[in-house]
Amino acid sequence: MPNLYVALAHYPVVNKNGDTITSAITNLDLHDIARAAKTYGVKGFYVVTPLDDQKEMTRRIISHWTQGAGATYNPVRRQALELIQLKDTIEDVRKQIEKIEGTPPQLVATCARRYPDSIGYIALRNLLGNGCPYLLTLGTAWGLAGEFINSADYILEPIFGETQYNHLSVRSAAAIIFDRLLGSR
Amino acid sequence: MPNLYVALAHYPVVNKNGDTITSAITNLDLHDIARAAKTYGVKGFYVVTPLDDQKEMTRRIISHWTQGAGATYNPVRRQALELIQLKDTIEDVRKQIEKIEGTPPQLVATCARRYPDSIGYIALRNLLGNGCPYLLTLGTAWGLAGEFINSADYILEPIFGETQYNHLSVRSAAAIIFDRLLGSR
Repeated sequence: MPNLYVALAHYPVVNKNGDTITSAITNLDLHDIARAAKTYGVKGFYVVTPLDDQKEMTRRIISHWTQGAGATYNPVRRQALELIQLKDTIEDVRKQIEKIEGTPPQLVATCARRYPDSIGYIALRNLLGNGCPYLLTLGTAWGLAGEFINSADYILEPIFGETQYNHLSVRSAAAIIFDRLLGSR
Repeated sequence: MPNLYVALAHYPVVNKNGDTITSAITNLDLHDIARAAKTYGVKGFYVVTPLDDQKEMTRRIISHWTQGAGATYNPVRRQALELIQLKDTIEDVRKQIEKIEGTPPQLVATCARRYPDSIGYIALRNLLGNGCPYLLTLGTAWGLAGEFINSADYILEPIFGETQYNHLSVRSAAAIIFDRLLGSR
């Protein structure tokens, strides 16, 4: 079984001007990525933000759907949102996965820009078969900060359709990446 | 070139209890599906609702990003949202495509439930190469109404990952379907 985890980073990401910032949580990122992760058997979905008020808001959203009125109204949504855990930093996510798996995950960064030494979908799909844990990291806002991307073990190829336009939402990108890496073939 | 259009239907769709309803517009459906459609070279994105207040709200959202402050702030978003057209009914969408193409589109319904005579992704991908127009129809709320699905020319297989959970958002489903039908192989 593929041993894939996903992190949605709100830091370190860049804004439109390329400055490193901390972005705000988007409610539908939590829902859409949790539902897609559950569909494809992703083992955990970590939402990364160092900001206390954003963590508190995220806890309230998750709690509504996992323990509050939403859990009764829509039990299948509950199953998805139960995959979410909040962490302050991507490093904290790595440590948590190391605790679970007994070995630290290989870190896979994603970016809409091309990098010369990126890994393709089929190559990463094949690697996932080796049983080692992998942490796929998605950036919000204008994407993950360059220093972070360059420090990752792998940089996943950007998603291109049949056009030169590649400005997908992070929710759409997550769905396509899970399908390419984990979907039935 | 594949000749694919997409419609996002807010009627006729079903609610949790299976009753046919008209659902409300979700802002991020417009953004995410427009961006994915633009990425994969989908020729038009039709948002279908018969409700006047929902059409007015949708026009305001589109106008903000195509002509208002949003168009200057984020020109690539503008290119995506320019694909959107509002229609009262799916039949109106068919007529419009017939006017553009000179021949009516084949109607492809989507559903998270399995149908015995559904078409697979590879088969539909091959059909798309024949140059005829196709209209992929996505449902909001709990999905397209059964009568509508049964009246379509094709019913596309549901998306399954490696689990039995298949409760993707319509935004995620659209992204995966475009990638499977139109993505580079």
